[in-house]
Amino acid sequence: MPDEQLDEPGSAGPADLSPTDPETGGFDRRGFLRGAALATAVAGAGAAACASKPNPSAGGYHAANSSAGASAASTPNTPSAASGETDARGWAAHDASGSLSPITFKRRAVRPDDVRIDVKYTGVCHSDVHFGHADWGTPPYPLVPGHEIAGVVVEVGSAVARFRPGDQVAVGTVVDSCGHCAECVGGNEVYCLNGYTHTYGAKSQDPGGYTQGGYSNSIVVREHYVLKAPQGLDLAQLAPMACSGVTVYSPMRAWGVREGWRVGVVGIGGLGHFAVQVAKKLGAEVVAFTTSPDKAADAERFGAGAVVVNEDKTQMDGMRRSFDFILDTVPYAHNLEPYFPLMKRQRVFCRVGLGKLATPNEWGQMSIFGNQVVIAASNTGGIRETQEAIDFCAANKIGPQTQVIAADQIGDIWKKVVDKQARYRYVVDAATIKG
Amino acid sequence: MPDEQLDEPGSAGPADLSPTDPETGGFDRRGFLRGAALATAVAGAGAAACASKPNPSAGGYHAANSSAGASAASTPNTPSAASGETDARGWAAHDASGSLSPITFKRRAVRPDDVRIDVKYTGVCHSDVHFGHADWGTPPYPLVPGHEIAGVVVEVGSAVARFRPGDQVAVGTVVDSCGHCAECVGGNEVYCLNGYTHTYGAKSQDPGGYTQGGYSNSIVVREHYVLKAPQGLDLAQLAPMACSGVTVYSPMRAWGVREGWRVGVVGIGGLGHFAVQVAKKLGAEVVAFTTSPDKAADAERFGAGAVVVNEDKTQMDGMRRSFDFILDTVPYAHNLEPYFPLMKRQRVFCRVGLGKLATPNEWGQMSIFGNQVVIAASNTGGIRETQEAIDFCAANKIGPQTQVIAADQIGDIWKKVVDKQARYRYVVDAATIKG
Repeated sequence: MPDEQLDEPGSAGPADLSPTDPETGGFDRRGFLRGAALATAVAGAGAAACASKPNPSAGGYHAANSSAGASAASTPNTPSAASGETDARGWAAHDASGSLSPITFKRRAVRPDDVRIDVKYTGVCHSDVHFGHADWGTPPYPLVPGHEIAGVVVEVGSAVARFRPGDQVAVGTVVDSCGHCAECVGGNEVYCLNGYTHTYGAKSQDPGGYTQGGYSNSIVVREHYVLKAPQGLDLAQLAPMACSGVTVYSPMRAWGVREGWRVGVVGIGGLGHFAVQVAKKLGAEVVAFTTSPDKAADAERFGAGAVVVNEDKTQMDGMRRSFDFILDTVPYAHNLEPYFPLMKRQRVFCRVGLGKLATPNEWGQMSIFGNQVVIAASNTGGIRETQEAIDFCAANKIGPQTQVIAADQIGDIWKKVVDKQARYRYVVDAATIKG
Repeated sequence: MPDEQLDEPGSAGPADLSPTDPETGGFDRRGFLRGAALATAVAGAGAAACASKPNPSAGGYHAANSSAGASAASTPNTPSAASGETDARGWAAHDASGSLSPITFKRRAVRPDDVRIDVKYTGVCHSDVHFGHADWGTPPYPLVPGHEIAGVVVEVGSAVARFRPGDQVAVGTVVDSCGHCAECVGGNEVYCLNGYTHTYGAKSQDPGGYTQGGYSNSIVVREHYVLKAPQGLDLAQLAPMACSGVTVYSPMRAWGVREGWRVGVVGIGGLGHFAVQVAKKLGAEVVAFTTSPDKAADAERFGAGAVVVNEDKTQMDGMRRSFDFILDTVPYAHNLEPYFPLMKRQRVFCRVGLGKLATPNEWGQMSIFGNQVVIAASNTGGIRETQEAIDFCAANKIGPQTQVIAADQIGDIWKKVVDKQARYRYVVDAATIKG
């Protein structure tokens, strides 16, 4: 998710949760937060359908594999004799203040189709900040955020076929979905018609009743939602690909970014700096738009052929009706009007940044009408596409510009992210998480 | 344009004209209004480029053809000896009050590529009302509206090849454009990169300095922008096809409405009742959405397989993620959120209704994101596509449900249109225009 922001007009408190019903397709990238926060009132059939499938009390934990896993990788987590649940340590937000502190909590027992992962690195996404700050409604606290997870398999369930202890893997924003709707069958689990289960803050049958994310040293995830690490890829690089990578890759593939296209990337933060690289590798000419003058040189280094700072009117006037695609990564509602005239007719302007619920996006009556601009939005991506995005990045030797941080720095990093000081992706070293 | 409205939240005075620059692609369906109203400040190069081509003082009027034309069809308009200009009668708005009264004015001399047309019928479009009421900025008054024109050729310029006196023809919303940009060359004149000239209220070199529309008994139009009437088609039926017909036809073709698709039409007015018919003929299953219960039976007669009145929640809950395309014809800003969950992923929700400038359209941060809804807007259509729409309607025996009115009823009809009482398209009989 994006790390860059524009000024937010007005402030918004905890947003009204009521208008969006998970069943209606109103899911957000981490949509089950609402299911978790307002379990019966809002989560509805979607959450129930997902949560009802696993059976945590019935032998999901596979002792043989578990011990193999535990011996294959060093992990402090040992299953409790009674339940098969394991201890985990994490950093959690306890309220909307933005401060985090260490906690210990339980991970569910490994079920036949589960994989238990020793977390090594977890990216800090702007969405974590939005969630933590309750920008999208009040999440269940304590909340362990993090949905850009890379680690090593330490235990697998009896039915797991694709992984074995020692494998390097990643987990993104989706850890469960119905598995049988048209979207799931089509590999687009994040658009599950019955609602997907977000990696943290979503109603589930995990201990505590909701999912906890990757700001932790351990996580248990159904095999289907676990991604393979390409050979030789640094895990700190891999982690952000599972969310920010696919978030920029997916819409570019959906709307056909290709050689010969002029592509704009608005907001050069965690998403944007990655998007420039992806668009460039797809063959496009890339123009970066930023409100941070000092990011101009970086944007060129990432692959932008031109950089527009602070919506420079002269530059933008010269770019009218020239763009085949614009990806807007800004994580706040902002004025979109300057960008619409840049679009070629019937081409897509796609938002992947998400602002606060209380602040809608707007378009003027005439502003997309005179040249048939198409406005879209896009979530992360399905599991297959997330794997594809990871593999694409690895094959093309592109990826996030990362800085590894200790867990006790997360609070400060959240402030940097909000203050547009992030350069460009921070990755928590799980070894520093002391529960 | 649409004849149905939802309640407008708050009232808006004459809108600010400044944010939209005609050069930037911010043209609206009748965009040159702004060029006319604020000629030097706003119209810019686009208007100038179009307006500079014709040369009304240099022999454009072709005497031989003119006399042939005059003799071939009865017309009260005779060229003045000095200028070649002809007298016309019309009904004009003189201010934003919504009342109209008769005027006489001049039509330009016929230039080599011009056609002079005896107007027979002109449709009353909701856009005429928006223009007249200055909803989109203050137009040049006196303003003769009307851009759904059907009539008979009475005179042609020396270079005119496609028409001759006696031909039945139509004129829509576009009467000039640059002719050389990529959009014009591609037949999409209404998306002219240099700005097109709207049929009325647009800066031009016509007498008076701006175009005057079809609430009149005569009009002079460049041949290229004149449409052929299909054999045997009633001219009162033809007139609205030149605007409302192509306005609904064009986006359905652009985004591939076809057999097997479920298509929604929001607003069953002048545009919507036509859209239902077109979608049905394209093979789609059509669902009509209306706020007028008494339109339900009509909508079924037009071809809707189902009708949803006042956004009935139970009905709409049952239609989640089932639509391949929705055309929103409502001519006012309204809450779009109930419709987004109905869309299949990556399918288009297209606005063709236009509200007041002061009221933007909105979408919630999460509302198009969870199922990749695509929001688009669409103008009328290029000349080639307008002809195609007309021919499609004639071949399929569909068209507007019209009532012929006298010119002195226009003011009352405008009130009916605003009050959602229109059923469904009113067509002014030009014979009743006494200047």
